[in-house]
Formats: sequence, C-alpha cells, structure tokens
Amino acid sequence: MASSVITSPKVSPTHFSSFPHRSSSLLLRHFHLPRPFITPTGTPLFLYRTGSSSAAAIKCSSTPTPPPPSRRPEYIPNRISDPNYVRIFDTTLRDGEQSPGATMTSKEKLDIARQLAKLGVDIIEAGFPASSKDDFEAVKMIAQEVGNAVDSDGYVPVICGLSRCNDRDIKAAWEAVKYAKRPRIHTFIATSPIHMEYKLKKSKDQVIEIARSMVRYARSLGCEDVEFSPEDAGRSERDFLYEILGEVIKAGATTLNIPDTVGITLPEEFGKLIADIKANTPGIENVIISTHCQNDLGLSTANTLAGAYAGARQVEVTINGIGERAGNASLEEVVMAIKCKGDHTLGGLYTGINTHHITLTSKMVEEYSGLHVQPHKAIVGANAFAHESGIHQDGMLKHKGTYEIISPEDIGLERSNEAGIVLGKLSGRHALKMKLIELGYDLESEQFANIFWRFKEVAEQKKRVTDADIRALVSDEVFQPAVVWKLHDLQVTCGTLGLSTATVKLLDAEGKEHVACSVGTGPVDSAYKAVDLIVKAPVTLLEYSMSAVTEGIDAIATTRVLIRGENNLTATHALTGEQVNRTFSGTGAGMDIVVSSVKAYIGALNKMLGYVNSPSTAVEPAKKVSVSA
Amino acid sequence: MASSVITSPKVSPTHFSSFPHRSSSLLLRHFHLPRPFITPTGTPLFLYRTGSSSAAAIKCSSTPTPPPPSRRPEYIPNRISDPNYVRIFDTTLRDGEQSPGATMTSKEKLDIARQLAKLGVDIIEAGFPASSKDDFEAVKMIAQEVGNAVDSDGYVPVICGLSRCNDRDIKAAWEAVKYAKRPRIHTFIATSPIHMEYKLKKSKDQVIEIARSMVRYARSLGCEDVEFSPEDAGRSERDFLYEILGEVIKAGATTLNIPDTVGITLPEEFGKLIADIKANTPGIENVIISTHCQNDLGLSTANTLAGAYAGARQVEVTINGIGERAGNASLEEVVMAIKCKGDHTLGGLYTGINTHHITLTSKMVEEYSGLHVQPHKAIVGANAFAHESGIHQDGMLKHKGTYEIISPEDIGLERSNEAGIVLGKLSGRHALKMKLIELGYDLESEQFANIFWRFKEVAEQKKRVTDADIRALVSDEVFQPAVVWKLHDLQVTCGTLGLSTATVKLLDAEGKEHVACSVGTGPVDSAYKAVDLIVKAPVTLLEYSMSAVTEGIDAIATTRVLIRGENNLTATHALTGEQVNRTFSGTGAGMDIVVSSVKAYIGALNKMLGYVNSPSTAVEPAKKVSVSA
Repeated sequence: MASSVITSPKVSPTHFSSFPHRSSSLLLRHFHLPRPFITPTGTPLFLYRTGSSSAAAIKCSSTPTPPPPSRRPEYIPNRISDPNYVRIFDTTLRDGEQSPGATMTSKEKLDIARQLAKLGVDIIEAGFPASSKDDFEAVKMIAQEVGNAVDSDGYVPVICGLSRCNDRDIKAAWEAVKYAKRPRIHTFIATSPIHMEYKLKKSKDQVIEIARSMVRYARSLGCEDVEFSPEDAGRSERDFLYEILGEVIKAGATTLNIPDTVGITLPEEFGKLIADIKANTPGIENVIISTHCQNDLGLSTANTLAGAYAGARQVEVTINGIGERAGNASLEEVVMAIKCKGDHTLGGLYTGINTHHITLTSKMVEEYSGLHVQPHKAIVGANAFAHESGIHQDGMLKHKGTYEIISPEDIGLERSNEAGIVLGKLSGRHALKMKLIELGYDLESEQFANIFWRFKEVAEQKKRVTDADIRALVSDEVFQPAVVWKLHDLQVTCGTLGLSTATVKLLDAEGKEHVACSVGTGPVDSAYKAVDLIVKAPVTLLEYSMSAVTEGIDAIATTRVLIRGENNLTATHALTGEQVNRTFSGTGAGMDIVVSSVKAYIGALNKMLGYVNSPSTAVEPAKKVSVSA
Repeated sequence: MASSVITSPKVSPTHFSSFPHRSSSLLLRHFHLPRPFITPTGTPLFLYRTGSSSAAAIKCSSTPTPPPPSRRPEYIPNRISDPNYVRIFDTTLRDGEQSPGATMTSKEKLDIARQLAKLGVDIIEAGFPASSKDDFEAVKMIAQEVGNAVDSDGYVPVICGLSRCNDRDIKAAWEAVKYAKRPRIHTFIATSPIHMEYKLKKSKDQVIEIARSMVRYARSLGCEDVEFSPEDAGRSERDFLYEILGEVIKAGATTLNIPDTVGITLPEEFGKLIADIKANTPGIENVIISTHCQNDLGLSTANTLAGAYAGARQVEVTINGIGERAGNASLEEVVMAIKCKGDHTLGGLYTGINTHHITLTSKMVEEYSGLHVQPHKAIVGANAFAHESGIHQDGMLKHKGTYEIISPEDIGLERSNEAGIVLGKLSGRHALKMKLIELGYDLESEQFANIFWRFKEVAEQKKRVTDADIRALVSDEVFQPAVVWKLHDLQVTCGTLGLSTATVKLLDAEGKEHVACSVGTGPVDSAYKAVDLIVKAPVTLLEYSMSAVTEGIDAIATTRVLIRGENNLTATHALTGEQVNRTFSGTGAGMDIVVSSVKAYIGALNKMLGYVNSPSTAVEPAKKVSVSA
C-alpha cells in the first residue's frame, strides 16, 4: 500500500551551510581573527587555529532549532563585504568536463548549471567557449538562462568562460558570457619555468606583457569581472608571481586564481603560497584571491582549506572532485569541511551553499559525466554513511554521534531504512508524484506520464519499488539525449553452447522500422553489431559498465557505455592547446541487462549523432598564443 | 605476431622509495630538523617546512642514475635507529575488510599479505582474531607463512592482530599471531567523552585501569610488541590522553596509535595533537607514535602527513584507502607524497616501500574486496596518468614534466601505448609466460595451463589480446574460491519480446551433472533462479556490477556480485562490538556477459559455502568489555 506522507525536510533556498551570526559570537569567545605567525627568518606563516582539547567534540549536523539564516553578501567582483565569506567557484562544466570520457551535451550542461544554481554556487565556470562551437553554444545558453534567473534574495550565479591569453579566446568567451546578469572572463597563462620554457617558449617579460595586455583587452570589451590565473603557480618563482599578479591587477583583474596545476604542494606549502602572495603583491587588497588545487597526491581538499585559511576568498572546486588525472578539490568535501570546522578551526569561514542539494547534484554529475565515485568517496560515496548492517547485539550504539559527524539529511540523503513514501504495485499517480517531489524531481507532464507507465511495469514484477529504482527510471527517461534512433524490439539467444545471436528492430526519427540480425561473441556484442548494421555510424566502444542500483535479483540494472566516433569529432584542450577526440556516454536502465545495454548504446549513438548535426566550430582554435590589444 | 622482448624495468626488492643518504646531504644544505614553533600563548606548533619559491619545481620520478639503495633500519618494536624512517602499517586486511561487502576468504587474505610483503610494508594488521573462527585462522595462516618469510636483507613484516581491551580478545590475538617471527598485539579502548559515556558506559578511571591491565596482560603472554590505541583520540580530552598513554607505556606498550576515528580533524589540528602528545606524555621517548586517520572529510592523507611531520613514525594506511564509511588514508597516496616531498618539505622522511608493486597490489585489493576505485582516484585511478588522448597539434608538449609529477613506471604501471610483449592469435606458451612475468604473475603450472587455453580461446576471437584481457583471465582463473559448484553449460533467450528463459548445467564437487531451467525478468534473473533450483542455498543479491576491462565491442567483461546468505553468517565488528552479517563477493570474466554473470554468482556461492563448511567461531565474541589480568 502506498502512503502519501512526505517526511523529507523542506529545504529553504536561503538555508545556508553556516551561520555567521552564530559563528561570530563563538569567535568572540574562543578564537581570534587570522593573522600570520612570524618565523625566526621573518617569513609570515599562516596557521590553522587549533581549538583546545575537547572543544573538538563537535558535530556538524543541523540542530533542531537552527538560528535564522544569514544573507549572502552582495556580489561585487573585486571585494566581499563580509571578510569570512568564501565564494564557491564551480568548474565541473569546464575542468570536470575535461576528464577523459566526460563530454556532455549542451542540454546536460544546462541541467547541471540549473542544479548548481539551486546549490547556491557563487560562480559557474560554464566552459571554454573557444574550444568548439558546441562549447560556445553551451556557455551562451547557460549565460542566457541560468545567468538571468535572479531569485527573491537577489542571488544569481556569475557565469564565467575560460580563455587562453589571446584575443580570439577572450573575444569568444565574452561573446558567450555577456548575456548573463553577472558575466566573467577567466584568462590564464603559465608562469612556471618548466611551462614557460617547454610549452610557451616565451621569456618572463613576454609572458607579463601578454597577461597585462590581455586582461586590459578583456576589460575593454565591457567585462567588469576578470579573473586571471598564473598556470602552474605551485611551481612558479615567487618574485615573478608577485610581479605578474601586480601587473594584471593594474590592468584590471578582479580575481587572482592560484592554481596548483600538477597537484604537487602540501597544505602548508599551498597556504604559505597564498599568504606570500597576499603579503607581497602590490594592489592585492583590491582583488579576491582564489585557489585551484589538483588532486594528484590526494591533497586537494586539504590544500584548498589551507588556501582559504591563509586568505583566499574564492575556492575552485568540482562536484565529486572530477577533472583531469586525479581531478580537483571536491565541492562537497570543501563545503562540508568548512561547515564542520569553519567556526571552530578556520576562524569563522562560511559559504553560501545549500548543502541539502549535494546528493542530487552529485548523482546528476555521475550520470552525465559517466565518472562514478568510489563507494568510499567522502561525503557522496555509497558507503559514506553506511555502517555494516547488523544485529545491534546489546543496543550498544545509543548515540549516532559516536561514529557520525555529518547527518545524511544534511546533504539531502534519505536513510534507506527511514524512507518516506513506500511504493508498490497498487501505488497510483499521486503517490508516485509525491515520491518524485520527495526525491527532488520536478517533471514535465509528458515525462511524468512516461515514468508512471514504466513504474507500473516494474511494480508488476517487483514487490517493493525503491527510491533507487525510481531514480534509475528518471535517469533513463529524463536524462537522455534527443532521439535519433529508438529501440523497438530485441531478441537474443546466448550461452555456452553456441554463437550468440541478436535481432533488433529500431525506429528512426520518422518512426520507420529497421530490422537487422547478427551473431557475436556474446549477447551484447551480437546486439551491438545488429545495431551497427542499421545505424551505420562507425564507433569504437571505449568503456562498458553496469550496476544494479538496488538489492535483489530482480533489480533494475543501469548500463553505461562510452564510445568514440571514427569521424574524429574534436575540441581544443584548454591547457595543452591540443585537439582532443570527443567521446560520448550513454546510459540505459531495465531489468534485462541485454536490453539496458542496447539502450545505453543507442543513447550514446544519439548523443554523438546530435553532436555531429550541430554546425561545426564557429571560432577556430588559435594555433599560437598571440599578443594583441 | 608475438614478440618476446621484455621491456618492463626490472625491479629490485631493495629499490626503496626514498634515499636517506641523498636526503641527508640535501637536508644539510636546505633544511633543518623538525622543531616546534612557539605561539604567543606558549603552545608548541609543528609546521611543515616550506622550501623557497622555485625549489618546489621537483619531480618524484626515478632519475636515470639512482643513488645506491639504502637499508631499512633494523626492526626493534619501540624505537627506530634512523629518526627519518617512517614505518608503514597496512590495515587493508583488518580495517579495510571491515568495509561493507569486502569480506575476503582466508586464501584471499593470504594472497594480499604476500603482496604486502613484496611491497615492503613494515607491519601487516592481518585481522581481528576474536571476530570469528575464520578471521582467527586467516591471521594464524598469515603469521605462519608470511610472518616467517625472511628475505635476504633480513626483512620480514611484523604480523599484527587487533583485539579489544579484554583478555579473551587479547588471548585470541596472541594465539593467532604468535607463529610469526615478529608478532604484535594491537589493543584499543575508546577515550573520548562521547564514546566512554554512550558506548563503554565507563568512567575515566575505569578506562585507564582496563587499558593498563590489558596491556600488561598482553605483555605477560610473551608478546614483546604491543600497540595501544585510544579510540576516537581526535575527540578526546588532551590531559586524559596524556595520562592514559603514560600509563600504558609504563604497562609495556611499544607503539601508541592515535586514531582520528571519525575523520573530524584538519591537518594542522591532527599535527598538533601528535605534537602535543609527543611533548606531554610521560615516557613517550621510549615508544613509537602512530597515526590512523579516517577520511570522512577527505583529509586522511593530509592528516597522516601532518602527523608524520609532527613526529609520528608509524602511519596506518590501507591499499586504495578502503575502510568503513569514507575509508582510511591510502597507502599509495601517503607513500608517494613522502616519496615526492619527503626530502623537500617533510624534513627528510622516507619509507621502505617498493613503489613498483603499488599498481598490482591495488588491482588485487580491488579484485578481492569488490571495492572499485574511481577513475580520478589519486595515484591508482584509471585516469590518474591519462591525458585525454589527442592529436598533438603542434608538438607542444615536449616535456612530460609539464603535467606529470610521478612517472607511471614508478608505481609499476605500463603506459598502454608503450606496451612490451604484444600477444595475438599466434602467440605460444613462451610468449604468454613472458607476458605474465612482465605483468607480475608467477603462476603454478596447472594454473598456467588453464590460462593458456583460455587465452587461446580469446585470441581466436580477438585480434589483439591486451594486458587488461590477460589480467582479467588471471583474476578469473586464479583469484577464485575452492570449487563446490562449477558451471558446465548455459543457454539463455531474452529480449523485449517475451519472458527470459535460462537453462543451466552445473557440476557438483563430485563431478555429477545437475540441470535446471527457469524463467525470469531478464537473462541474469532467469539464470540465477535456475542456479538456485540446483544449489538450494537461499541468498540475497546485494550488488551486481560489470565492466569491460578493455576497449572494443569484443572486450572481456568482468562481472562482480555480492550476496548475503539467509543463514546469518556473522562476525563481531571490532569497534562497535556488534554482530555483522557476512557478505560474499564473486567475480567472473568472459566475452558473454550472461555467462560471466553466472560464473560470478557461482563464485560467490562457492565462497559462502566454503565459509559455512569451516567450523564455527572458536573464540566466542565477548559480550562485555571486562577487566582481568
């Protein structure tokens, strides 16, 4: 029987992760404002404040009577009225999408940008517009839509576009972001000896001149919010850093982002880098300092926090920590660490993130990027809140706080054994609608109708339809590219006794039926070969994976595939300037793994064919870094 | 055509990750030994040393002419002759195995222990012997075999068993580890107010008395190497910590492990905790301080390094960072960070780990624990060394160091495009044998014969057999539990047009054939139901996942399943004292995903049935913590 009681907490969009009013009073009692320690050699060192002994016995979960939510400080590009507020700059759509296989369609990017706005991120880096026509269009669309959706508190995210230090890139970035209420151009050039020598082949003076003139050019286009990054700052010479940063401040930069591009620094080193820049760069008091930490040694979260503690008031992060190689600092880890420790150890820092949207955002990014998080991923991994299910022998665990420092509810995760609405065979439209709202989905009526029929199909065969089942159905139905080909029927025989054989019937965009059969080494191989006979778009299958989302032998399995077309769809890589091959992921869900595998494959093909059909690159990628103004 | 040239680097077992001779000379030039800074309030604070500016432009890869390898200091439980040497304590088999679903068989644990010895870890925590008969036997077997395999340099890992602070647990631990050349008992009791109040229901004095008498009891059994952990030290009162630690030192403890049980500390806080303990605990100069950092906020690696920098000379880690919730500090991240930064920033620290074995160890633990690492996992993730494959437009990247701080070769990872032996249809036994050696496998002749025939089967159907294909075949053939049931034949029909039907033929341990058929909601469901009709061992399927290990539609797919028997096989959870249900994983590889799914299921069933058949718990789990001596 269905129940229609909603048990999940109502989330207010102004329910911030931390409360400066409360933290201020705590601060007065226990802590001092950040200031540097001076070492015997006279170098200022910023340290974390370490509270005394048992004051550390804290818990970050919402209290039953939370203090009134505070307001996010008004957005002014180069300063923040509250010295404790840390801006969250999300680069999931730019640095994250740069991960192998994480290519997303414009629609997917727009969905994620909308979700990031719900989460309350201050700045969305929406892409690298000069990279390809598709990237340009995605950034423009996000600027137009998400960049203009001002909420009742006056919040609207800044929409940022990345560009190398050349006029074509900067022009493309401006043309894409200028539609937003708060547009930002982010330009960068490498400043480490190894990068200047081997990648740029430029002298220090040349690099300074390029940076200065390009920041000036960005401002001259009418952009009042310009971010500059000295790439590979972690390995750059300090004095050169101070000089180039001082010059770009004079040229009009409003945020200076300090990337540890290769993830080589330890937390104290990175904190000291930020403190040194703050202490030695002329004009630094007129701009915001930002961190960007790669995770090659597993230290990105710690480095980001050390940077914030040392004075950075913007942190660049991605959902789930995705990004090239070992990825970036995770938004969820940085935000929850600031939520847990901002008051106590970090001198009162807080962010404007509504942490209740973390789980759904994480799932959406997993879904679209195809990059799964490991079960032991902090905050959002499947096991992050799981304790080995067991018999509570003698009721020893009376107090959740013994092993739990964050409540699952704080990040919008329902405990599976404390579920709200239970769905089954007899549940109707209303119960399903309520469950979808509880899970955070607000669907259009046609989408809802489709989900409802698929739900009934599943409920016919399963006793209890779980939240995970519903999420899988929604992903399968809603998070799909525009249809070019559609699976109509499939029949397969396989096993150890002979060759696998598959017959598929596909519908094309006009609804016309196409039938083909093929043999193969297994059921998926034969079915994919039959699909290929119809679609005739040669691809390489790069990855294939599947997981059952729920317990039980009758679970819904989700298949994910990653393909690369042999037609060489490419985009320009932001950092290396190389042309990279586009890859496309597809997912399919169902109780028959062969059927879900074929749906995933057709989804990936549709995504690729949709991409092919869009007009080719509008802005030619620049072959060389050039100076102009 | 096969080639038989071996191109992978030869690895010497004494090729350590860092070279103290070299680091000592560097130290003299650039660094000082660790010492605390004194804050205005008189508190000593340990800081990382931050090298000046561009000195940070380092790379950790092997140099073409490495200095001569140094020797690992002789093992003495309570002291280390070289003040810069950090002991690596691996708890993959204890804390890691505690993760949901990571239950391993004794044979699997033994395989991992052997691999950990190749890696050169100083201490292997092999399990929690009082937990169950199976755990006890596994620890004993590891102590007998791995704990006695002394190499030519005199290295043999310490074998450690965990126990709660009661005489039954300690007795069980001793009975299991005493067979090792270097046995250690590790006992713990909670010391934070929240744990003492809600979990132990004991006063401070009672807790101190239990700890003191139990350490004394462990020593009285003849164990000269006793580790003590104050559980939840991160949230314990400092003065109480100093007191209890001072008491257990007097009682005979040789290592004091400081766990951040709930992962709540920031690096500087944890470093300060270690520094405070070092500065204030009576008798601390006679023991080794150890770290144990959980990863709930994603800070475990940074915390571990901060602890080592502040004076800890043992770090507790797991392969791939597995463990309950968000897991532990990863061995590979901590070791590679020390390798990269030990000389430059951490005051000369080094470990005895042979990093060339990291990749293989990581894969083995993934395989056996069923816990996959995410593609962007630092060091061992699939993307950790991957740059988006692309056309090198203008040969911009002349120097690998621009984006790479560690060479894949340093962790034993071959670059896929720089492969050694290429295997194909015509490759013979010799080529396969050479390839297996190149990949680090040393197989028995029967195992090799089986792999060879399966390799030929695959080579018949695939143009090029990759390293990943070979690894999947080895996993499938070698990493399997003892056979109770074996798949003989399988025939399945499925698709969108009707009910899936499967027929299976299994062989039992005596070789007798059993045939059954069933319908189901999909091919796997129907096949599993048919298996159930024969095996008649009711289980719940908890997880099901699959991934293709290689590119291409004809790839070998590996399926993994996790089941829980309905007969309630349990073990005692070390920290909570609860009875937890055992779960069992199985894997199967093949080109037909339905066949590999059935093999995985039968593997998991065999693992469970093998476990059932072993005699039941020898040492009854203690219901209550009791004092005795």
